[in-house]
Amino acid sequence: MASGNAPLTGEMLIGATPVTGGGESLRAVNPATGEALDPVFGGATAADVERACALADAALIPYRETSLADRAAFLETIADNILKLDDALIERVMAESGLPRPRVEGERGRTVGQLRLFAELVRSGTWLDARIAPAQPDRKPLPRVDLRLRNIAIGPVAVFGASNFPLAFSVAGGDTASALAAGCPVVVRAHPAHPGTSALIGGAIRDAVAACGLHEGVFSLLQGPGNAIGQALVNDPRIKAVGFTGSRAGGLALMATAAARHQPIPVYAEMSSVNPVLLFPGALAERGAAIGEAFAAAVQLGAGQFCTNPGVILALDGPGVDAFIAGARAKLAESGAQTMLTAGIHAAYERQVGVFAGHSAVATLVRGGAPSGPHQAQAALFETDADSFLADPRLQEETFGPCSVLVRVPDMTMLRGIITAMEGQLTIALHLADADLPAARALLPVLEEKAGRVLVNGFGTGVEVSPAMVHGGPFPATSDGGSTSVGTLAIRRFLRPVCYQDMPQALLPDALRDGSTVPHDFVN
Amino acid sequence: MASGNAPLTGEMLIGATPVTGGGESLRAVNPATGEALDPVFGGATAADVERACALADAALIPYRETSLADRAAFLETIADNILKLDDALIERVMAESGLPRPRVEGERGRTVGQLRLFAELVRSGTWLDARIAPAQPDRKPLPRVDLRLRNIAIGPVAVFGASNFPLAFSVAGGDTASALAAGCPVVVRAHPAHPGTSALIGGAIRDAVAACGLHEGVFSLLQGPGNAIGQALVNDPRIKAVGFTGSRAGGLALMATAAARHQPIPVYAEMSSVNPVLLFPGALAERGAAIGEAFAAAVQLGAGQFCTNPGVILALDGPGVDAFIAGARAKLAESGAQTMLTAGIHAAYERQVGVFAGHSAVATLVRGGAPSGPHQAQAALFETDADSFLADPRLQEETFGPCSVLVRVPDMTMLRGIITAMEGQLTIALHLADADLPAARALLPVLEEKAGRVLVNGFGTGVEVSPAMVHGGPFPATSDGGSTSVGTLAIRRFLRPVCYQDMPQALLPDALRDGSTVPHDFVN
Repeated sequence: MASGNAPLTGEMLIGATPVTGGGESLRAVNPATGEALDPVFGGATAADVERACALADAALIPYRETSLADRAAFLETIADNILKLDDALIERVMAESGLPRPRVEGERGRTVGQLRLFAELVRSGTWLDARIAPAQPDRKPLPRVDLRLRNIAIGPVAVFGASNFPLAFSVAGGDTASALAAGCPVVVRAHPAHPGTSALIGGAIRDAVAACGLHEGVFSLLQGPGNAIGQALVNDPRIKAVGFTGSRAGGLALMATAAARHQPIPVYAEMSSVNPVLLFPGALAERGAAIGEAFAAAVQLGAGQFCTNPGVILALDGPGVDAFIAGARAKLAESGAQTMLTAGIHAAYERQVGVFAGHSAVATLVRGGAPSGPHQAQAALFETDADSFLADPRLQEETFGPCSVLVRVPDMTMLRGIITAMEGQLTIALHLADADLPAARALLPVLEEKAGRVLVNGFGTGVEVSPAMVHGGPFPATSDGGSTSVGTLAIRRFLRPVCYQDMPQALLPDALRDGSTVPHDFVN
Repeated sequence: MASGNAPLTGEMLIGATPVTGGGESLRAVNPATGEALDPVFGGATAADVERACALADAALIPYRETSLADRAAFLETIADNILKLDDALIERVMAESGLPRPRVEGERGRTVGQLRLFAELVRSGTWLDARIAPAQPDRKPLPRVDLRLRNIAIGPVAVFGASNFPLAFSVAGGDTASALAAGCPVVVRAHPAHPGTSALIGGAIRDAVAACGLHEGVFSLLQGPGNAIGQALVNDPRIKAVGFTGSRAGGLALMATAAARHQPIPVYAEMSSVNPVLLFPGALAERGAAIGEAFAAAVQLGAGQFCTNPGVILALDGPGVDAFIAGARAKLAESGAQTMLTAGIHAAYERQVGVFAGHSAVATLVRGGAPSGPHQAQAALFETDADSFLADPRLQEETFGPCSVLVRVPDMTMLRGIITAMEGQLTIALHLADADLPAARALLPVLEEKAGRVLVNGFGTGVEVSPAMVHGGPFPATSDGGSTSVGTLAIRRFLRPVCYQDMPQALLPDALRDGSTVPHDFVN
């Protein structure tokens, strides 16, 4: 286990202790070269999972009652420690993910910024949702009791690192940051595709735990291949919530496990979305080619490996559609193939592109540049008609990678029908000119019901970390359509309210005492 | 279907239309006399469920976008209409529940007050949780997009009437009030024990829907016996959330159905709690007998048929325990038996009291007055020791009715161990003197983790409707320990956040436009 810039050792972290797991081991593979990377990481055994959960449970009470200032400083220390990993981190991420340097540096900035945003949120105290409703002994017909409410941490949280954001949605990503902000100890199950990155970040968190004098159980990191580690983690009775970003099959498996526990627990899984892009006639007529060019850039961001990748284009039919296609075709044809995250992801991409390419109702509009190395994705834009799209669920499924299908939609009635028939989405994007506003307005309520974020004249691929962001949406975009995994609202997933009735001042938590300086609602 | 003070017809409501269900029918039974009450209510068929859900779905978009003022007025009109039912309502509730007049009148006041509180909440707009983060085109390294967020209704909600609160947790109870406040159409599955009460209240809501000019699908009421109606309702793909108060077995069945849907949905089930009462040595020494007398009153409230009934007393052993027992014994021995809600509930009570009475490690401390009519519950206080209590899960289970078990606990270590071993609770009550504060303070974090509400020197049976109330708690108290079914926070269960990115003012909802007068966070 790396501390500072020490070399990677192949250990994981059970609390503060580096441990070489005795389970099945793994090595990372550089997807750009196919070469295996050192060191070998020992995989967690059931006993390792058990010890990590026991430590997290032991850490819960001391950690959830740390002061707002101390907890905020802890999150900031993690951010500082990540930056101190410097180029060793960037290079390891690049080697394990095939992602280019600017993207990795940007993602590091996002990760650090996210930790700092949650530190600021913790310090504000607003997330406590404190309420003070003092007694009214003279109320008729019955006296009013003294009631006070605050949020507390739900308990130890299991976080699953995601393959596609080795930093921002992994060991110190949004799930971990929001759970730690809520006062929950975290046990991370590292994604097997980037064990070295996970170990480096895990060391940064472990060092912050130590530097801030916290209970070591606040953080553990489990390494290893396969599903057994995650299943054991979600089954542990001390785990009280789960954060996951990944495949639909993976999310559904965790949901089933969590629901079957003696004490069922919430799973916040972000799983599957095709992020429909709606092209309105006015916008197409005005700037069809430009939208097509912008689309071509968006669909290839990160080799199309974004949860918010634009996978379906619903174009209201008309002459502007050809301009869109021409713009997209020109840009895609000249684009280079990009290395995907893993051999498995690349194989799945090839398989799903094959479904489109071999489909009798689907035409291939353009393919991107051919691969020049292993595991490279060749971008693809397909076309089908509305009836065929509606008739075949395979055409509506997410293809993880730089692939999209354009559907020619005859009219607004059909567009509404398609949206209504589709599953829940993270994002829906509309391209509009002024003339399109009335039609868009009429459609908007249907869009709000289908997606967590509705956006205009852009693509969903950028996910701003903000108090006003929703990175969520109805199933199967997420397992809980009322939640978000990005932005300050993400903390809500890991909190539960507790009410204190007629409690002496000496027993009340600081935030609820008379004269509390923490923001609170006073109920007359 | 009754409108105003018209006689009951045995119909249910599919939207505005009174319908005599073609399924298995039922009649209410007066538990105090055993006599069947007119009229016969036709039971809902699968087709009735389907039509109610289709109407609710059709009502969703128009209803969820009603103005804050209009929606608040609707809730207030329901409250007014309930009061207009006057004594016909009170008498029907008494006949169907065996509950005495003062309790029923009090519950009506609570129900009406709850609707008015949610009207006030709707009008405030705070539940929208609106956030406006305007664009920053000059931000480096990337411009900031314009992001705005508000909550919207999750969709049509299925509400299950509870047996034990025929008004406050039934057709127009907390689940319905909070779902309607959130903008969700509601389909109520009436509790089979009080179809006439349900029909009267249903008529009051239906009349309010009409008077306020709302889509008829905003409210439907399904009648009938058995589990098939509720299962069909929770399985309907248009239903997006479930509110339930009832038995553990019933709640678990709905949770399983909801989790197995193609699109899983949240179930907010309030199920099972024994509401431990902790008696500390100082309080016992100071006023043991008085606490015992107060306990005897609390355990018999509503014939013990409160979710918050004090079912387990954990008394730190010492001389004060005998004073507590003496006080409780005197009051319980002189109490009369009370009619329970249904023959089935009474039979279950007798069965569970029999488990205690026949248990080798349990002593009977006192029984209340003997029954003088059908379905009357004879109160019971039992005693056991800490080891026996821990060893037998049956002694830790909820007994629905005026029954409690006192556990002599040798010391604080054992008390902590018992609390830790117990399941989640709605409430935990502490009886304290000043000398007990240090011990209570040390125990508090464990209590917070086990219960939604921790209260001092009282019993949990009164549940104030307040912004600071939590009527919830970790499983199995509720299916979702992060939620409450009483108080303004209950609205959160039926909301989901939506983010609007770079949306023209003309498309934005009123609450998010520049210059909005709805309370919102402005994000710089």
